[in-house]
Amino acid sequence: MENDKIEVLEQNQETLQERVSAMSSEDRVEYFMSLSRDEAEDLFLDLPPEDQKDIFLNLSTAQQRTFLRMLSLDSMADLIQHLPENMKYEALNMLDPQTKMEVIGLLVYAEDMAGGVMTPHFLRLKPDMEVEVAIRYLRTYSKHHDETIYYTVVVDNEDKLLGVVSFRDLLLSHPTKKIGDIMETDHVSVLDTMDQEEVAQAFSDYDLSAIPVVDKDGHIKGVITPEDISQVIEEEATEDIQRIGGMEALDDPYWKTDFLTLTKKRAGWLIVLLIGETFTATAMGRYETLLQQAIVLSLFLPLIISSGGNSGSQAATLIIRSLALKEMRLRDWSRVLIREVGTGLIMGVILGLVALIRIMVWPNREALYGAHYGKVAIAVAISLTGVVLWGTITGAMLPFILRKFKADPARASAPLVATIVDITGIMIYFTVATTLLKGILL
Amino acid sequence: MENDKIEVLEQNQETLQERVSAMSSEDRVEYFMSLSRDEAEDLFLDLPPEDQKDIFLNLSTAQQRTFLRMLSLDSMADLIQHLPENMKYEALNMLDPQTKMEVIGLLVYAEDMAGGVMTPHFLRLKPDMEVEVAIRYLRTYSKHHDETIYYTVVVDNEDKLLGVVSFRDLLLSHPTKKIGDIMETDHVSVLDTMDQEEVAQAFSDYDLSAIPVVDKDGHIKGVITPEDISQVIEEEATEDIQRIGGMEALDDPYWKTDFLTLTKKRAGWLIVLLIGETFTATAMGRYETLLQQAIVLSLFLPLIISSGGNSGSQAATLIIRSLALKEMRLRDWSRVLIREVGTGLIMGVILGLVALIRIMVWPNREALYGAHYGKVAIAVAISLTGVVLWGTITGAMLPFILRKFKADPARASAPLVATIVDITGIMIYFTVATTLLKGILL
Repeated sequence: MENDKIEVLEQNQETLQERVSAMSSEDRVEYFMSLSRDEAEDLFLDLPPEDQKDIFLNLSTAQQRTFLRMLSLDSMADLIQHLPENMKYEALNMLDPQTKMEVIGLLVYAEDMAGGVMTPHFLRLKPDMEVEVAIRYLRTYSKHHDETIYYTVVVDNEDKLLGVVSFRDLLLSHPTKKIGDIMETDHVSVLDTMDQEEVAQAFSDYDLSAIPVVDKDGHIKGVITPEDISQVIEEEATEDIQRIGGMEALDDPYWKTDFLTLTKKRAGWLIVLLIGETFTATAMGRYETLLQQAIVLSLFLPLIISSGGNSGSQAATLIIRSLALKEMRLRDWSRVLIREVGTGLIMGVILGLVALIRIMVWPNREALYGAHYGKVAIAVAISLTGVVLWGTITGAMLPFILRKFKADPARASAPLVATIVDITGIMIYFTVATTLLKGILL
Repeated sequence: MENDKIEVLEQNQETLQERVSAMSSEDRVEYFMSLSRDEAEDLFLDLPPEDQKDIFLNLSTAQQRTFLRMLSLDSMADLIQHLPENMKYEALNMLDPQTKMEVIGLLVYAEDMAGGVMTPHFLRLKPDMEVEVAIRYLRTYSKHHDETIYYTVVVDNEDKLLGVVSFRDLLLSHPTKKIGDIMETDHVSVLDTMDQEEVAQAFSDYDLSAIPVVDKDGHIKGVITPEDISQVIEEEATEDIQRIGGMEALDDPYWKTDFLTLTKKRAGWLIVLLIGETFTATAMGRYETLLQQAIVLSLFLPLIISSGGNSGSQAATLIIRSLALKEMRLRDWSRVLIREVGTGLIMGVILGLVALIRIMVWPNREALYGAHYGKVAIAVAISLTGVVLWGTITGAMLPFILRKFKADPARASAPLVATIVDITGIMIYFTVATTLLKGILL
């Protein structure tokens, strides 16, 4: 018994694949070359396609052929997708004609469509086969390098999907039963053009182990396995998180993204936001005389606009995630609005009170904020209530508006919401202040 | 053939489970009661535990027993966990003694530990069994309501894990082969106390279909299946997204969280941030005389502090996600710092230039910003460069600092980073302005 070969992962333990992925490109190739053949093969299979590419480009042609052929069909397609243009054709020609056709079929689909995630290679059963015959058939035709799938599909003579049978059901059914009698006919399937995010959602909603992919006429095109899906779910969450943070989503992990691309994907949005923020200067310009007379008002400006931005950022991220998980739909916007107005109002009043107390009890309040600090405190408190309410409404509604116009709700990033709320926050604050302090400070 | 029963999901299509989950509690119960027995069973199995609870509490005791027993073991444990305290004991007593013991075993683990996610019910094989015998054994002892697992574990006489065998391998191997010869011995397993986030990571890193869970002595405790994992991945991403948005993570979906809890989880952080922001008023107070003399400086204050917050929010979300996906480790902080200083500097210079041009070409710049608008523009540009660089560094390093102190890096939320950067942004801006404008405006 080789019990010692079983690797038990512990909390925060770094795996070999993670360590190798974190290496620089040169170190990775060098490390790979130092491995025994068996170790090298194991590692190659575990690595993501962008790391496989580094290694692949440093292999001899004969080695390239061997390592490429080791991969499952959709991993082959992923790796080829990552190769430089001139290498793609060469790599495809390393495959036997049948495999080449299947990989080309996969390359047709965008990487983030159901058709781009599925494996196109799977065995089909007919409904009138006996279980025993089906097992013998699978045993004969299933190749070792196939995806480890646990479902086979049952199709009619026109290749239309009739149902699915799990290997488990095959194994546990009486050998003389008919496939048509043990297959599941109410299993969910998806269209080949469906977005991978929706496919992932279906997986987790329905507790599925595999989803057959069909074209619009119901012909079977492939099968998506759970191994494919867990990566899809993580990719989609990463995209959303990066957009919420106010940047373009990266196509690759942090270290794999070159410095220039990384800077470009971030600077673009920062410039857009900066241009948006220049309107705060314009808004402030209208109140220059007011500011001149009551400079104390400017002290609380950052506090007020930040609170608006913070409440907006909370509301936006909450709604973005709920929309992504389909907990709510476009038509729910009015219900959300009602709830958020309530939450925003309560939070605004609480924050207003906290600020009021903070100013009223501050040791040298009179020296800092002038004789009329009480009025200033009330102006700040009322403005805070208004700004937090307004920030919450803006943050909650912007994702719905983006969805309405077919844009990704995750574009309602914390920085974007903050920028929108800044301008209105300034106007709310100075309007309240003018009204309250007229004839006193002004 | 009942081909019409195959449901093909289309883009943006709402599923029955989603529609029912979005209903109010009363509507859900009413809808459930209107279904046929078969439909009701199907729906009940698909619903998340918090929805199952609503329905469960409205059933007769006899129905409760039937519906509870229909669930897989870990779904039973999840539902019981969601019941009111006084119902938990009652529900456990509806189970047969053996099942009850297994469910209690699951309840021992926190919901987010490997032990809380695994199914404790699985069949064990011995290495000296023949494939044929193993299949017969599985056929006899596998119950219909078992989790749909595709792996069985191979253990020695002390219940220590030796390896795993997939149903697929069993099916495709020659009937007289020994289990010990076809089992995989280098399969990854995890400790029962491991955090579910790490388990999910292992799934996607290793492209696994199932992970055996062992205690610290190597005894098998259960198996985690891919159906469990896709939900875990989504839960963990939701938690991170909500924390990044600057709020406490919700335990339940938006509509399932009552109004008070929702408001509390958001107001808490807003108050903390507000108190942090009051230091901006203190910081500004130090420059009150400066502001009095050059009120024009206050016009650009929101723009400058927001740009710092935006760049910080970008950097923080990027690093938080990379840490969560294990693309980087604590020890990588210095490499990240070097890279982020580069990116931050370039972005800062670009933003500075954009602001400089904006001020210099604005139509009535002299009327708005005074005769020395050129100097003001330079002060704004230099401050922007400094603030963006500083925001980027703060946003990138804060997640590492939190991880270092064993806190969740996702706590480095966009609002928190923005608040920290606001205070330093004010100081940078006024320091630069004082130096540049001394003797001119002042």
